[in-house]
Amino acid sequence: MKQLTPERLLDVAYDEALRGLAEGGIPIGAALFDTGGTLLGRGRNRRVQSGDPSMHAETDAFRAAGRRRDYRGTIMVTTLSPCWYCSGLVRQFGIGAVVVGESQTFSGGHKWLAGHGVAVTVLEDRRCIDLMSRFIAEHPALWHEDIGSADDLEA
Amino acid sequence: MKQLTPERLLDVAYDEALRGLAEGGIPIGAALFDTGGTLLGRGRNRRVQSGDPSMHAETDAFRAAGRRRDYRGTIMVTTLSPCWYCSGLVRQFGIGAVVVGESQTFSGGHKWLAGHGVAVTVLEDRRCIDLMSRFIAEHPALWHEDIGSADDLEA
Repeated sequence: MKQLTPERLLDVAYDEALRGLAEGGIPIGAALFDTGGTLLGRGRNRRVQSGDPSMHAETDAFRAAGRRRDYRGTIMVTTLSPCWYCSGLVRQFGIGAVVVGESQTFSGGHKWLAGHGVAVTVLEDRRCIDLMSRFIAEHPALWHEDIGSADDLEA
Repeated sequence: MKQLTPERLLDVAYDEALRGLAEGGIPIGAALFDTGGTLLGRGRNRRVQSGDPSMHAETDAFRAAGRRRDYRGTIMVTTLSPCWYCSGLVRQFGIGAVVVGESQTFSGGHKWLAGHGVAVTVLEDRRCIDLMSRFIAEHPALWHEDIGSADDLEA
């Protein structure tokens, strides 16, 4: 039996990011697991594909997992440091752990979550860094739209 | 011409809350306006109606407003103090102002937002307080599910 490691969980989120890229979307993926490694839901950023600014990868994975009463025994895995919106999701619903693919191209609320008792693992995975670096370089306006950084749009 | 007041903006969010209640849902409504009072999007909690735990009222109103590049000149109006998830949405996208119907039955991140430069107005509107008070008393498990308070479920 294969060992349950953060890196193996990240593979699922990374696959979602690649699917998003192939669709012409912003390549950020996420997945929600239970602590036994069972996949509860997976998703990706759908701003471009669905014209839906509320569907960040973590939110899409959370939605895919359906209604649940208790998230303490769940792990949110995301290719990129969760923004404040997605960090708020993790905090409000008491998701117990977060695995972050990388926090080099964008740093959201993962340290804030760690300070509120969430078990946070940051992998600084090379594939994730390269994927987002390329995307941001090629599509800066779309990226800034996705994180609400209007100041950068005007630069 | 009618004056643009927080109370008038709240009427739209309250109407959404009543629609949600009539649908058998959690009665929380929200609306996004520009500073001139133009309605950009309105929505309500859809956990019950759509089986979608990611559709809090503020998120639904944000989604209904579609893709935008700059939220600084927008006002999010909600019948209830925004939870961490919805507060994170406001912070990440730089929504400039928040009007809160009430913070008596639940207090989320509205003070945190005020500390991060968001113009927050709390009305403590009697209709909103009564609506949520009744709902929580009648549907405590559903309410606790919606805010991720698993501890309360076990009590």
